[in-house]
Amino acid sequence: MTIRRYAVEVPKNPIAVTVDLVVFTIRDGELCVLLVRRGIEPYAGRWALPGGFVLRDEGLDTAAYRELEEETGVAAGVHLEQLATYGDPLRDPRGRTVSVAWLALAPALGEPVAGSDAAGASWRPVRVALRGRLAFDHGRILRDGLERARAKLEYTPLATAFCPPVFSVAQLRAVYEAVWDRELDPRNFHRKVTKTPGFLVPTGSTTNADGGRPAQLYRRGDLEVLNPPITR
Amino acid sequence: MTIRRYAVEVPKNPIAVTVDLVVFTIRDGELCVLLVRRGIEPYAGRWALPGGFVLRDEGLDTAAYRELEEETGVAAGVHLEQLATYGDPLRDPRGRTVSVAWLALAPALGEPVAGSDAAGASWRPVRVALRGRLAFDHGRILRDGLERARAKLEYTPLATAFCPPVFSVAQLRAVYEAVWDRELDPRNFHRKVTKTPGFLVPTGSTTNADGGRPAQLYRRGDLEVLNPPITR
Repeated sequence: MTIRRYAVEVPKNPIAVTVDLVVFTIRDGELCVLLVRRGIEPYAGRWALPGGFVLRDEGLDTAAYRELEEETGVAAGVHLEQLATYGDPLRDPRGRTVSVAWLALAPALGEPVAGSDAAGASWRPVRVALRGRLAFDHGRILRDGLERARAKLEYTPLATAFCPPVFSVAQLRAVYEAVWDRELDPRNFHRKVTKTPGFLVPTGSTTNADGGRPAQLYRRGDLEVLNPPITR
Repeated sequence: MTIRRYAVEVPKNPIAVTVDLVVFTIRDGELCVLLVRRGIEPYAGRWALPGGFVLRDEGLDTAAYRELEEETGVAAGVHLEQLATYGDPLRDPRGRTVSVAWLALAPALGEPVAGSDAAGASWRPVRVALRGRLAFDHGRILRDGLERARAKLEYTPLATAFCPPVFSVAQLRAVYEAVWDRELDPRNFHRKVTKTPGFLVPTGSTTNADGGRPAQLYRRGDLEVLNPPITR
């Protein structure tokens, strides 16, 4: 499509637009976030969220998927949603930037791939990341992403985004425990998730039981809102 | 604060950043949205959401409040939250723009003030606005804002943002009915909102009863999440 020109042009205000990604996964029962160690100033040596500039003819979601794939090697099967946009005039000492942040929830992935401007990328436990000081306003973006994920686990089936396609209630509970950072009573949790209509669909299969009782396997149902919610 | 300069500067990608506002209020029992009739091309003569370019040293929320005050004459007492950011490369025929959209919920306001690039501004019933074709991607932004407001009335006390500081359950129900565009059973609604802990605080006063039974007056409690939610 040709872009028509009008007498009144869009002002070229000097704001650069970026995307930043809060990518969560669960490793060894712990909620982890993908961080890159900055190789260049500003904030050289600090951990930062992966991200980059939006290209000239690229939609915001396309830019987010591109960055996700560049950093992790995968994009298919990853839940991606817009988180919020951050535009404090002083958020980047190099000049004015507006960053559209995205929240991605991924089932277990391999080791991340370092981008060109990053000294190294790795999965860091969220608890550890929040104790340190991230570059730019990335600490705030991470906290906002964490709160979004925690809240959405209450009233949507989004916890299943961390699971393989077929999973047990114990696997699902491990997700809730990792994201909410607290232990849940197994029987209570089992009752809640199996009583919330449309949340889980039994596959008819069970886990291989090594000694213990085999567990039912489920896949995600197609409802979008949990009613009643599973509250923290 | 001085902005330090680094060897690596922020690229000047030619993207202009704007804010657009979805401002809802309730007039004559109907949910209304603030629209401006465009005076200039593109989309001259079409209704559009109010908005404008973010200024050089202005935060995104500051820009949103400024536009709100320019259009309505008020900003105090209005609930304002970021909705989402829209950046399709072809969304504006004049050139590349990224728009950070904001949702504002206001108690009854006076007539709006037309901005400099608008032929006229007015409160339009949302039902009517959705039937027409708004300028740019503003139809989609309006639908997203409507869904956000509808969903938040379920699980937050946000309906009170449309009410005066002290209100009756009947006034609150009129808000729910206007936003959800459906009638609610008065007794059921009364039971739900008064049984949701912390939602409403009785003031001890009642309405003046002209013949009928005087109604209790309430103010908003300080909880942030309704549990159980008031479902649609």
